[in-house]
Amino acid sequence: ALRQLSKNRLRLWLRLIKSTRLVEDEVRRRLRGDFGTTLPRFDVMSALSRAPDGLKMKDISRLLRVSNGNITGIVDKLVEDGLVLRIIPPQDRRTQIIQFTDRGRQEFETLAQTHESWIDEILGGLNADDVDGMIRRLDHLVHALEERQ
Amino acid sequence: ALRQLSKNRLRLWLRLIKSTRLVEDEVRRRLRGDFGTTLPRFDVMSALSRAPDGLKMKDISRLLRVSNGNITGIVDKLVEDGLVLRIIPPQDRRTQIIQFTDRGRQEFETLAQTHESWIDEILGGLNADDVDGMIRRLDHLVHALEERQ
Repeated sequence: ALRQLSKNRLRLWLRLIKSTRLVEDEVRRRLRGDFGTTLPRFDVMSALSRAPDGLKMKDISRLLRVSNGNITGIVDKLVEDGLVLRIIPPQDRRTQIIQFTDRGRQEFETLAQTHESWIDEILGGLNADDVDGMIRRLDHLVHALEERQ
Repeated sequence: ALRQLSKNRLRLWLRLIKSTRLVEDEVRRRLRGDFGTTLPRFDVMSALSRAPDGLKMKDISRLLRVSNGNITGIVDKLVEDGLVLRIIPPQDRRTQIIQFTDRGRQEFETLAQTHESWIDEILGGLNADDVDGMIRRLDHLVHALEERQ
């Protein structure tokens, strides 16, 4: 039975990878098709939306787990599009703080609402009990993994 | 209630991303620490282990969803280490088939058993019912997403 449980935990892990990738692919496709945008750009805006005081480049890079170089291009384009500002704080002129403009914040709100409705549809086969049960189990897993770090 | 369900499906999606990343990080750390190897190399070997007749470079690249260029370096190193062979089939001399050597297959079997035991431990907080329930729900999700493609 333990042997079978071990096999099933491995199967679960492979399913977790597969479903995460499939959902991500679908979101990527819709961001491109409906908004002409990319998942990394969405992720940068999403990180900024949770930081009312803005974020340093290195914070964005850490949160998204991608290199500073990759973030630079995305932020350049967001500045060009008038959606974010680079602010140099007077007390530390070597730092840059990236912040939404009002228009950037509004644009992200629309995007985030649409994104939520996509996920609602994509995960539509999971009812309220399924969703609650899975959140509870994944929280348990995340908690155990964070303890370990 | 629908509003809440939509919010919870989004929460579930964020948990799925987070837990997949945390488990992957832990596996990456152990592959490096215990075997001096990397996740992409493990993934290439894992793909080869499911293909007794070997795989073309472009199949590996498609299965792992990474560029041919990234695969080339990994396969070069596996050849150098005596774990895989490049075979040029007589009927199509422009193709290369990558196949395990006996030693490669044996080495991967050891690695795969250890990997299964890591996953068993990492997901140890999920009991047999949790695991079965989650596999069933994720299968449902994967099936719906694959229908759509």
